[in-house]
Amino acid sequence: MTLQARPLRLSTQSADFEARFRQRLHWSADTNAEIEQRVADILHAVQQEGDAAVLRFTERFDGLQAQSLQALELTQDELKAAFEGLPEAQRHALEFAAARIRSYHEAQKKAAGESWSYRDEDGTLLGQKVTPLDRVGIYVPGGKAAYPSSVLMNALPAHVAGVGEIIMVVPTPRGEKNPLVLAAAHVAGVSRAFTIGGAQAVAALAYGTESIPRVDKITGPGNAYVASAKKRVFGQVGIDMIAGPSEILVLADGSTPADWVAMDLFSQAEHDELAQSILLCPDAAYIEAVQEAIDRLLPSLPRAEIIAKSLNGRGALIHTCDMEEACAIANRIAPEHLEVSSREPHRWEPLLRHAGAIFLGAYTSESLGDYCAGPNHVLPTSGTARFSSPLGVLDFQKRSSIIEVSEAGAQKLGAIAHVLAEGEGLQAHGQAALLRLRKA
Amino acid sequence: MTLQARPLRLSTQSADFEARFRQRLHWSADTNAEIEQRVADILHAVQQEGDAAVLRFTERFDGLQAQSLQALELTQDELKAAFEGLPEAQRHALEFAAARIRSYHEAQKKAAGESWSYRDEDGTLLGQKVTPLDRVGIYVPGGKAAYPSSVLMNALPAHVAGVGEIIMVVPTPRGEKNPLVLAAAHVAGVSRAFTIGGAQAVAALAYGTESIPRVDKITGPGNAYVASAKKRVFGQVGIDMIAGPSEILVLADGSTPADWVAMDLFSQAEHDELAQSILLCPDAAYIEAVQEAIDRLLPSLPRAEIIAKSLNGRGALIHTCDMEEACAIANRIAPEHLEVSSREPHRWEPLLRHAGAIFLGAYTSESLGDYCAGPNHVLPTSGTARFSSPLGVLDFQKRSSIIEVSEAGAQKLGAIAHVLAEGEGLQAHGQAALLRLRKA
Repeated sequence: MTLQARPLRLSTQSADFEARFRQRLHWSADTNAEIEQRVADILHAVQQEGDAAVLRFTERFDGLQAQSLQALELTQDELKAAFEGLPEAQRHALEFAAARIRSYHEAQKKAAGESWSYRDEDGTLLGQKVTPLDRVGIYVPGGKAAYPSSVLMNALPAHVAGVGEIIMVVPTPRGEKNPLVLAAAHVAGVSRAFTIGGAQAVAALAYGTESIPRVDKITGPGNAYVASAKKRVFGQVGIDMIAGPSEILVLADGSTPADWVAMDLFSQAEHDELAQSILLCPDAAYIEAVQEAIDRLLPSLPRAEIIAKSLNGRGALIHTCDMEEACAIANRIAPEHLEVSSREPHRWEPLLRHAGAIFLGAYTSESLGDYCAGPNHVLPTSGTARFSSPLGVLDFQKRSSIIEVSEAGAQKLGAIAHVLAEGEGLQAHGQAALLRLRKA
Repeated sequence: MTLQARPLRLSTQSADFEARFRQRLHWSADTNAEIEQRVADILHAVQQEGDAAVLRFTERFDGLQAQSLQALELTQDELKAAFEGLPEAQRHALEFAAARIRSYHEAQKKAAGESWSYRDEDGTLLGQKVTPLDRVGIYVPGGKAAYPSSVLMNALPAHVAGVGEIIMVVPTPRGEKNPLVLAAAHVAGVSRAFTIGGAQAVAALAYGTESIPRVDKITGPGNAYVASAKKRVFGQVGIDMIAGPSEILVLADGSTPADWVAMDLFSQAEHDELAQSILLCPDAAYIEAVQEAIDRLLPSLPRAEIIAKSLNGRGALIHTCDMEEACAIANRIAPEHLEVSSREPHRWEPLLRHAGAIFLGAYTSESLGDYCAGPNHVLPTSGTARFSSPLGVLDFQKRSSIIEVSEAGAQKLGAIAHVLAEGEGLQAHGQAALLRLRKA
């Protein structure tokens, strides 16, 4: 039987478009009560017993035995050796990518991550002080989805933000280490690394143990156990978003080679059977050409089976009236990755309000952004780009308001604050303002 | 029986300091399984039944009957009339405060909330596009803790960010409306307002109903039901922080009148019996003077009973070796409000890393910041200032990465991306990059 990938064909002109479109987009994070309970138990055990519990769970879940947590720490020498053991092309690629990512995030810090202040006409100082987090934890998945690029994308913004200490955790089932992940940790300047994973690693970072220091924030992707653990420790520490399956939306005017677009659709689909690849295009003949390219290119790919399942189950090729309508639909989807594969990308870009990352023009394949263009590849999924943003320097800083009221300012502000405080029935607030008034 | 407020006296020199200090700081958000379940049921009902469920719960919990949700919408005319019905002093105070808050948040937007981009040497464009959220919901508590200042502090940053529509919900138990809250909504330019509250209001904003539009983010404080509902809808919509009890930490060198500091400690304590007020000071005689001021000033305050319970149960006056040690302890606490009541506030400010807002100098009472200095009064509590920030313009915007790779850029980046993608076993990613290479 030949493998076939046939994304759902839709036209915005069909009477049933709205219903079928909604159905295809539908995705909801299953919360599994059993997982929730197991995770709660693991967190509790680590909080109570520290290292001992982490060692026990690591043996149970990762098949990895150790006498102490020290034995599970990767030394800087090991990380460096992993880097030096790589082929030259991989060493160069990691360093090149790291340099691009670092320089983009430095621009980001300069644009939006610096302290500022001003004085008003009374000499009152108002501002915002930006400081890095003291210590962060980065979760890196082990096993088949072990992505060295994620190490760079999580650790480098933290570094650029000025975070003092970056603790990486990465499970190594049965002791199997991924040299590219270790090398990426070396390149990204991870401070300490432990070969632990799962909910027990999240708990260790959130609460601290005898050997693992408590962090202020935990970022990085993981399986259902890791996601559930991150949600539970949120508040105790900061967390990044809980990611859903990856998505790409391609807006095409028909000017890009169909093979390129087909391959871009594949490159999300190959992540995961639940990943979603959608094409929006006003040109029916081009949609045919993309389907033809899909048929022709699919067999050449090692992950063809995953790609086919993803495209058949969640993919769509949507015929729109025009590019304007395509932009409006893109805003409804608020996709993680949005390619504007058009001769006039800057014509459409201003119409696009919600997306994690916007890739403009035929040359900007999403895969370049995944690895080395510079911007972060950790992006909001499942429509959360309506209200959230790519991971970046801002996520590894926090801001404190700065207020220094002058004596003159205290007179004006105090009178106002007194009125409002009395209106709210908070008399001590009012009195605190009044005490600073000059006696008439 | 005379009311007495005796905050715990501690000295960093005592052998038991560490244990007693930790114990006093301890606070944990109780999760109440019964509340959790009731909230889950309410959310489910609103998601399924829409308006009908919201009306039913509003009748049950707020004792407020209505035929339709339209009857629970406050018109712009009603908001305006509430404003015009206020005494002149209150109208002026609201407008003055709004102008200060607006102008601070405009400075914030200019400093950190604008789009930016640059081109690299290959002509590749990299940047970040900043866009406002389309629609946000603001929760305003009703009843005794109905604070008009919170309306300003939540709605104005959303406005400055450029949010298209701001939907306010405020419960009005038995139909009792707070004219100051309605007036603040008028001054802050709220788009629509509904007299609903509790978990049912959060659900209506998160899912949308026939009459209440779905929002992208919900901010604002509320009781345990509201907090639990916000946590549950997080992911579906954005939320701000879940706030714990309010806190103030005063770092004093002994140069500020003791009455002023005593009143500042009161002004957090009066919020809530669980609020926390702490003084850190290297001058033992000054600590005595503050206790004496507490004794003297307490009886004059209408909320003396709450203040006494808060100070006795959670307050502390801590004698430190010097100001440097006081700063180090402040960083451990990471307080919501941090007053540096010193003759040399700028000497100590650089040592302070973690705080929601920092108030410099004797004239800067925390109450001025609460109402009208300009910065936001929605601040991270319970030590979360280690990793989070005051509410602000950034919370009502989101960022999208912008990438436009030039043909020349695609050659360099493509070669690198191909190596890394192959290393991760993602061949379609690699092929998408290779397809853009010029044939040699």
